[in-house]
Amino acid sequence: MARRSDHTREEIKTMAVAAGRELIRDAGYAGFSARKVATAIGYTVGTLYNVFENHDDIILHINAVTLEDLLSVMESRFGVSGDASADLDDYEALRALAACYIDYARENYNCWSALFEHNLAPDMPLPDWYGEKIGALFTLIEARLKPVVGEDEAELRQTARVLWASIHGICALTLTNKLTLVGVETAESLTAALIENYIAGLKTRPARL
Amino acid sequence: MARRSDHTREEIKTMAVAAGRELIRDAGYAGFSARKVATAIGYTVGTLYNVFENHDDIILHINAVTLEDLLSVMESRFGVSGDASADLDDYEALRALAACYIDYARENYNCWSALFEHNLAPDMPLPDWYGEKIGALFTLIEARLKPVVGEDEAELRQTARVLWASIHGICALTLTNKLTLVGVETAESLTAALIENYIAGLKTRPARL
Repeated sequence: MARRSDHTREEIKTMAVAAGRELIRDAGYAGFSARKVATAIGYTVGTLYNVFENHDDIILHINAVTLEDLLSVMESRFGVSGDASADLDDYEALRALAACYIDYARENYNCWSALFEHNLAPDMPLPDWYGEKIGALFTLIEARLKPVVGEDEAELRQTARVLWASIHGICALTLTNKLTLVGVETAESLTAALIENYIAGLKTRPARL
Repeated sequence: MARRSDHTREEIKTMAVAAGRELIRDAGYAGFSARKVATAIGYTVGTLYNVFENHDDIILHINAVTLEDLLSVMESRFGVSGDASADLDDYEALRALAACYIDYARENYNCWSALFEHNLAPDMPLPDWYGEKIGALFTLIEARLKPVVGEDEAELRQTARVLWASIHGICALTLTNKLTLVGVETAESLTAALIENYIAGLKTRPARL
């Protein structure tokens, strides 16, 4: 390990995020602590709180890497504005996006789960830089919904969020084995039925002026 | 407290379930332990494991009371086969059912959450009596979907499960304040959009032979 004086603040930050992410990956969100991160990188907790604003700020930086990772997996499969999957129709493309989300969650369960297990302190607003990473993921879904929903920004926004929240529900229930309890074998049949009918329903709306 | 010899096995079971449910209600699923239940009812952990099969069996009995409670709230508002809400159209009735689920989860957060936090041991099958309680809840949703979906049992089953899993996702994300992070103000607008389009989509299917 390099001597302490060798690391800039930015380097310490990067090391802490990597160590924290590894902790969560191996032991889940419940296994995370600032103390463990400090030990892993050979610094004191005090140093950690010098380079991060607070405990939430450390987790947000770790979770941001997960959001970036998920975005890069999605973009590599669907292109920034969905063009890499231009050969798929709307319905197939949205199904593939949903499958990609569920696969990512399954393969990176602890890191994905930490996105939802972490709760910001009530008085702490979500930083803009973090909100932008969430926004980038929704932009990708919205690009795929535009041919169906049209250009109305508010409706596009809402449709993307309804679909995500619904698929997230199916995903979370699948990965915690709760769908087998209600007699469902795979998440795939549920997401297919959800997207197929939801899209068909959207197409029945009267044309907007 | 009555003397120990005053209680039958059934009485001990009932006392333990009530005490366990109170524990979960006050301290969440993480605050539950067989030891605390035993202490609360003045018996040893050994006695508890004499009247229950194992740790999972205790939790299942506690969670079953939550399922019964949720069913009785739903039935009191919608009737056993949906007839108490006969004045609502399909779309309104399903929206009201979703709102009822989300309200119940909000008002009984720790008990509702325990339904999903508990994981059965991998070698333990779900007991039939517990599966029937889950089934009764789905029967209520299916009754409301029948006018839209038709009599096909398999499709009715699947449609009910898709809707529940999706609404469950919106509900879980709302109650953990995750929807505000993606710029959504209320769960209501999402469930409305979900049900409206999903139902409209179902109605576009070709008639079955």
